[in-house]
Amino acid sequence: MRAPNPPEPSPSEGCSQTPEAEDEALVIFTPSGRRGRVPRGTRVLDAARRLGVDLDSVCGGRGICSKCQVAPAFGDFPKHGLRSAVDALSDWNAVEARYAEKRGLAAGRRLGCQARIKGDVVIDVPPESQVHRQVVRKRAEARAIVMDPAVRPFYVEVAEPDMHEPSGDFERLCRALEAQWGIGAVEASLPVLARLQPVLRQGGWSITCVIHREGETGPARLLEVWPGFREGPLLGLAIDLGSTTIAGHLCDLATGEVLASAGLMNPQIRFGEDLMSRVSWAMMNPGGAAEMTKAVRDALGALARAAAAEAGVSADAIFEAVIVGNPVMHHLLLGIDPVELGQAPFALAAAGALRFGAAEIGLGLHAEARVYVLPCIAGHVGADAAAVALSEAPDRSDELMLVVDVGTNAEILLGDRSRILACSSPTGPAFEGAQIAFGQRAAPGAIERVAIDPVTKVPRFRVIGCELWSDAPGFAEAVGATGITGICGSGIIEAIAEMRMAGLVDASGLIGSAEQTGSERSVPEGRTHAYLLHDGSAAGGPRILVTQGDVRAIQLAKSALYAGARLLMDRMGVDDVARVVLAGAFGAHISPKHAMVLGMIPDCGIGQVSSAGNAAGTGARIALLNAAARHEVEALVRRIEKVETAIEPQFQAHFVAANAMPHASDAFARLRAAVPLPDVSFNTGGARSGEGGGRRRRRG
Amino acid sequence: MRAPNPPEPSPSEGCSQTPEAEDEALVIFTPSGRRGRVPRGTRVLDAARRLGVDLDSVCGGRGICSKCQVAPAFGDFPKHGLRSAVDALSDWNAVEARYAEKRGLAAGRRLGCQARIKGDVVIDVPPESQVHRQVVRKRAEARAIVMDPAVRPFYVEVAEPDMHEPSGDFERLCRALEAQWGIGAVEASLPVLARLQPVLRQGGWSITCVIHREGETGPARLLEVWPGFREGPLLGLAIDLGSTTIAGHLCDLATGEVLASAGLMNPQIRFGEDLMSRVSWAMMNPGGAAEMTKAVRDALGALARAAAAEAGVSADAIFEAVIVGNPVMHHLLLGIDPVELGQAPFALAAAGALRFGAAEIGLGLHAEARVYVLPCIAGHVGADAAAVALSEAPDRSDELMLVVDVGTNAEILLGDRSRILACSSPTGPAFEGAQIAFGQRAAPGAIERVAIDPVTKVPRFRVIGCELWSDAPGFAEAVGATGITGICGSGIIEAIAEMRMAGLVDASGLIGSAEQTGSERSVPEGRTHAYLLHDGSAAGGPRILVTQGDVRAIQLAKSALYAGARLLMDRMGVDDVARVVLAGAFGAHISPKHAMVLGMIPDCGIGQVSSAGNAAGTGARIALLNAAARHEVEALVRRIEKVETAIEPQFQAHFVAANAMPHASDAFARLRAAVPLPDVSFNTGGARSGEGGGRRRRRG
Repeated sequence: MRAPNPPEPSPSEGCSQTPEAEDEALVIFTPSGRRGRVPRGTRVLDAARRLGVDLDSVCGGRGICSKCQVAPAFGDFPKHGLRSAVDALSDWNAVEARYAEKRGLAAGRRLGCQARIKGDVVIDVPPESQVHRQVVRKRAEARAIVMDPAVRPFYVEVAEPDMHEPSGDFERLCRALEAQWGIGAVEASLPVLARLQPVLRQGGWSITCVIHREGETGPARLLEVWPGFREGPLLGLAIDLGSTTIAGHLCDLATGEVLASAGLMNPQIRFGEDLMSRVSWAMMNPGGAAEMTKAVRDALGALARAAAAEAGVSADAIFEAVIVGNPVMHHLLLGIDPVELGQAPFALAAAGALRFGAAEIGLGLHAEARVYVLPCIAGHVGADAAAVALSEAPDRSDELMLVVDVGTNAEILLGDRSRILACSSPTGPAFEGAQIAFGQRAAPGAIERVAIDPVTKVPRFRVIGCELWSDAPGFAEAVGATGITGICGSGIIEAIAEMRMAGLVDASGLIGSAEQTGSERSVPEGRTHAYLLHDGSAAGGPRILVTQGDVRAIQLAKSALYAGARLLMDRMGVDDVARVVLAGAFGAHISPKHAMVLGMIPDCGIGQVSSAGNAAGTGARIALLNAAARHEVEALVRRIEKVETAIEPQFQAHFVAANAMPHASDAFARLRAAVPLPDVSFNTGGARSGEGGGRRRRRG
Repeated sequence: MRAPNPPEPSPSEGCSQTPEAEDEALVIFTPSGRRGRVPRGTRVLDAARRLGVDLDSVCGGRGICSKCQVAPAFGDFPKHGLRSAVDALSDWNAVEARYAEKRGLAAGRRLGCQARIKGDVVIDVPPESQVHRQVVRKRAEARAIVMDPAVRPFYVEVAEPDMHEPSGDFERLCRALEAQWGIGAVEASLPVLARLQPVLRQGGWSITCVIHREGETGPARLLEVWPGFREGPLLGLAIDLGSTTIAGHLCDLATGEVLASAGLMNPQIRFGEDLMSRVSWAMMNPGGAAEMTKAVRDALGALARAAAAEAGVSADAIFEAVIVGNPVMHHLLLGIDPVELGQAPFALAAAGALRFGAAEIGLGLHAEARVYVLPCIAGHVGADAAAVALSEAPDRSDELMLVVDVGTNAEILLGDRSRILACSSPTGPAFEGAQIAFGQRAAPGAIERVAIDPVTKVPRFRVIGCELWSDAPGFAEAVGATGITGICGSGIIEAIAEMRMAGLVDASGLIGSAEQTGSERSVPEGRTHAYLLHDGSAAGGPRILVTQGDVRAIQLAKSALYAGARLLMDRMGVDDVARVVLAGAFGAHISPKHAMVLGMIPDCGIGQVSSAGNAAGTGARIALLNAAARHEVEALVRRIEKVETAIEPQFQAHFVAANAMPHASDAFARLRAAVPLPDVSFNTGGARSGEGGGRRRRRG
């Protein structure tokens, strides 16, 4: 081996795809397949750049960052007599040797900025050396997340000041960024300018710039300067700001890895459980909106701190946040009074995507951190729905997809590549366990799964926090009678659907008496009946009942959900859909069979119903990790046709017609064939069976 | 007269310069001379816009603002049989009638947005109807200020929200601004977005937008929204941030009028009289720079409040500030530690022009107000010198101009259309009355003008605050003996020059004894002599003397000034200049003859020396009122060749050689011919005559 060579600046010649020259070599990069001829002696990194190959670098080719590691394959070009990459690349030089010694360099790896191409060669760019590498998502069907963060580090060497050519340190930095990275027109705040001079001198005129830029042509903003070479940490926070809960994912902006996830209750709940209560509170109380704004901003700050603490970093390392939320939360976070969202025509103050400094809303991230808020679709269809659209990508689907984000309101998207419709439906909070006699939020102790034996009418169930079914040996010990505290949203849906399948409830939603159902678990409650799901009273625990009121509440909610979906189908001119995606934290737990028994969603093959989990949060994470996705979702939202359920007579008609379980519809023929439902009717004239058709105020 | 017509939207047809058509009319606008044929029925405002005529409008042609008033001249196109403009324009309509009744419309005036062109006509656009009208400056030789403010009001009518086409209020506003004013891509802060909805509804979907935009293609920022039509007030503050004093001019951004001028002492004086003391203070005291930053920001806030109070408005009405200052003040204001400016290579943190929010430096203007800071030229030649260059415009001069901004440091510009050089020279504070035995700042009681009878050696003088010379009847009563308190900068220059002309001082700067000068006013003081300028002791007032030390201090200062100018002349390869402009508050009071007797400035015809007053402040005002001038000064500063005196051996040589009064130079031949100087020499060997040649540290 020859003596290691010092690093040299690269030759400035271009590469050619055409005639072969003796002083050129053919280089083929995998996995991109990009190829071309470059002058012998060209650095691999330079060859990659000229050929448009996605090869990362933070230090700009100075052998510091090792981001440009490549794996030369065996040369396979017999014509040139080269048999292996060892011959086709220059020997290790001093920089590689030092790097390997100090930080290690895996066998077969070279630094792209040091190795020079001597002969024809195939060079593999491993995933971790690609800027735009893919981040693995848990669900195979969802779109891939390709790394393209807005915030990245750039190492530069800045010219020293010269009395004979006076210029500002910042101007010389800008020239270096332009020359070494092609980044022009950089903006910096006064505090960053104030830090620049000592940092430049501390770093010996070499510094790492943390730059925020959406795409290679977007405006560039200097967020931070660090002396010398430093890669990070550079973190981003994806926030799903829900009416009830706030969830945040702290991501490494270099790898896309989720370092921490934090969640907390939305503190605005003290101003009103649902969105309309909060809008009313803002209307009734002077300064009320400002108070709610402060509460939610404080909460986001706490969320950021909690996530940073979990990841073992300072919140100062968070340079960007992407936020999604429904329109009321969106407005309250931004400091906009949501009063207009509470009344027709439900005008948003600002519908488009917003970009501003995190300090403007007091998030407590890095002082220069940026915020991106996804666009809202309409007055009732917010940035959360836009995030769901980004995550579930109906615009990339060949089949007609119905995407339902089930929360306190349901946001509904229907579409495929050619056309997308959206609306919001006022389902109310029953699906989240509110307005249910023994309802509770999804938390340990809540019944989440229910099965009722159609013959004995005896239930069994599972509670959150315990893997066992209630009829399994050891269940009582695992849970303890007092450990069963109520029924959560998915539990009440399963309970009522199972009651329907067991003949305890008729199609109109009436719970039969013990005589009518032949079950002692049908117990009288006032003028109606209830079903005893669990009796823990012997052990000092609660008796948990599913009441007639619970059934009515679920009927209202599911009618609203169904009517919204059906309205969009009318608009689209279709009677069924190819796929249904249930999104939202709650959507993740709904059993498709039970949803269809209740008639929550339009008919489609049960196998075609899937859950997307917290798709809004995933959409926020996509926008955080991939700046190009922001422009994509903005364009998508402009394309979406908005349907306002509040002014559609058709919605009202669908709502009323959807009261039964399931309701009369030709489309349900398939379901009826698959799930036999008992033909019972408990309506004896006196019971209140029709009260479910009324229109209720919108809730959130 | 026909019944008044209601206002109508204008036809969208274009205008033609070419073939005559029967349905078209020729319109000629004065004073621009722009002409063209437009379809009969075209509104005058639309014709003006199509022909590129500078006709103002705030309301967008709705007959509200009356900014588009025009004065139709008599039609003079016999071919068409039209004899007067009365026939060539449509009759008054209802809008004009109402406007004339309510607010008055001068005879012969029409509203350009209401009057329609019926036949060939000449239309005069009076100055007050021009957007880019000229603001009168006091001095005829200075460049004109043409109104082109960055902040302007725009009245728009916004579409109401539509449930069937949901969109944000802000997006509809943006569409209106684009359609009605051609203003695209408007940005707004969150607080402005938060105000938008109630303002739109209060104004019945008509609002006035206060928009900041530098030029018609620059990025537009929405600073404020007002319901309905409102013109202002829209004010701007031009600030000259000096080491010693801070001056502000509050301007009406619609008219250019100066509504108030305020000045105060720079509170940083408590950290050090001159700039280098302040830099040292910052270096010696942790947090010292931050403390000085706070002091100057607070002072600017006080200045803004004082100016607003003087004008009888709230500081909230100030939407923009333009700030100039020397590099140390520039950095301290921005929160940048000036330590690098105190040592070679005198690197600025940021040299270019800066744009940011006024709130970022706590100016207490309108919350959304913007700040523009002019670029610095070099580490010792600041944004104040750039402002002087903008005001005095050597780049527009056919003759070679020397522009000297005389302050604690002197900033010197030399150039013409083809080339401009700049440097800074460390004159020290003597020119401002500091380091002078009886020196004081220019304030009432200070001697500012001096004349000494060459025969009797008896002085007479004037003091600030009194119009009479000291030998005039009634002077004593007008001033009172105790009212004479000291000598200011211009006074000491005149005193020493007059002493030189009266033979009381020799060319080397020695003050002669009573025997040598034949005057009892030459009094001993230690081992040297002093000249008794004023004896108020009989009335209990001071005896005011010009001491040998005073002469030495002025010699040092004038040598530095001269050496700087001379260095630039060397670089330019010239031995004299066509014009000398003395800028700075002090420059305004220097008598050219006395300056030349002392040898402060290179020789040129005395008539070619003029004073520009506070040219830096004027430059700030120009940049405030004319946004295009900002790009102009930025380009100018890039063009200026910077010369660093600290590293030029030539500067040292000139400095030493310039000690005499005046010093030996062929260029002074003309002066010697014009002002006979006595050929006296008081050097008797023992006196200290050579101590003036030493190099002193830079002061500010």
